[in-house]
Amino acid sequence: MDIRAVNDLSFEEFVNIFGNLVEKCPIVAATVWSQRPFGSFTALEKAINDFIDHLPQSGKEGLLRCHPDLAGRDLQRGTLTQESRVEQVAAGLDALGSEEASRMERLNDEYKQRFGFPFVICARMNDKATILHQMTERCQNEPALETLRGIEEVKKISSLRLHSIILVDTPRL
Amino acid sequence: MDIRAVNDLSFEEFVNIFGNLVEKCPIVAATVWSQRPFGSFTALEKAINDFIDHLPQSGKEGLLRCHPDLAGRDLQRGTLTQESRVEQVAAGLDALGSEEASRMERLNDEYKQRFGFPFVICARMNDKATILHQMTERCQNEPALETLRGIEEVKKISSLRLHSIILVDTPRL
Repeated sequence: MDIRAVNDLSFEEFVNIFGNLVEKCPIVAATVWSQRPFGSFTALEKAINDFIDHLPQSGKEGLLRCHPDLAGRDLQRGTLTQESRVEQVAAGLDALGSEEASRMERLNDEYKQRFGFPFVICARMNDKATILHQMTERCQNEPALETLRGIEEVKKISSLRLHSIILVDTPRL
Repeated sequence: MDIRAVNDLSFEEFVNIFGNLVEKCPIVAATVWSQRPFGSFTALEKAINDFIDHLPQSGKEGLLRCHPDLAGRDLQRGTLTQESRVEQVAAGLDALGSEEASRMERLNDEYKQRFGFPFVICARMNDKATILHQMTERCQNEPALETLRGIEEVKKISSLRLHSIILVDTPRL
C-alpha cells in the first residue's frame, strides 16, 4: 500500500483499516480522513498525533480509559481487540508465572486507583520485566505528568500499528 | 439504577455500560466519567452533549463517520452494534421492499458523496417513510448546516440510549 492508495480510500474503507490505530477510538481516523490527501505516512501520523494533542486534559484521560489492562481480564477472556492481543502476547503477557501475574494485577489496580485511568505502555517496545519495572516507577508520578506519559505511549502504539498496516496489509487494497 | 449507583461505578464499569451512547465512540463516556458525581441523569446527558459540542468541525464530522448506513451492509451482514440494530429494526429498515431498498441505497450514496459522512437520523423517532423523506430533503442542505443537523440527531440517539439503559438495565448493577 502506498500513500496514494490511502488517499483514494472512502471514509468507510479508511476507518475500517485505520480505525483502531488508537485503541477503540475510530473517531481519530474518522476525523483525520478530512485532511486527505496526505503527502506521506508521516503526515498521516502527524494528523493523528495532532488530534490527540488537541484533546482537552479530560479527553486525553478518556482516551487512556479506552485501553485494556495489561494481562487483565480481556486477555484472559479473549475479548481484547486483535491489535492489543498481538501486542500483549508479543510482550509475553499471556505467559506470566503466578507471582508475576499477581504482581501485575496489584500494580494495575494501584495505578488505576491513583490516576483514574489504566496503565498504558507500548507493549511491543517492552517485555514483561520492563513493563513491571515501568509500572512500579510510573505509579510514583504526579497525575498531570502521568497523563502525558500515557499519551506518549498511545502515540508509539499508534505509530507501530500504522507501520504494521503499511507493511502487512498491502493485499487488502 | 439511580444516579448514585452511576456515580459509584469504576471507569471500566461506566464505559462498559455507557460506552456506546455515542455510536462506536467510547471516548465520550470515558471522558465524562471525570466529571462525576453527576447530580442527575440530565447532568450526565449535558456532559455528553458538551463533549460533542466542543469537538472541532472535523471532529464532529469524524463522529458522524463512526455511524453505519441505514439499511446498509452492516444491517444485512449482522455487524451493527446491538443498539443500532434495535433502532434500525424498530424503524422497519430490516423489512424494506426492493424499491424502497434501492431508493435508500441511492440516497445513502448521494448523501455520502455530497457531505463526506453518512446520513444520521434518530431512527427511533422515525419510520422508513419519514427517513426517506428526510434523506431527500437533507441532501439539499449546505454542508456546514448538515454537520450540525447530523450532530443534533446524534444527541437524540444518545439521549434515548441513555434512557433505555436507565429503564432496562437496573438488574446489571
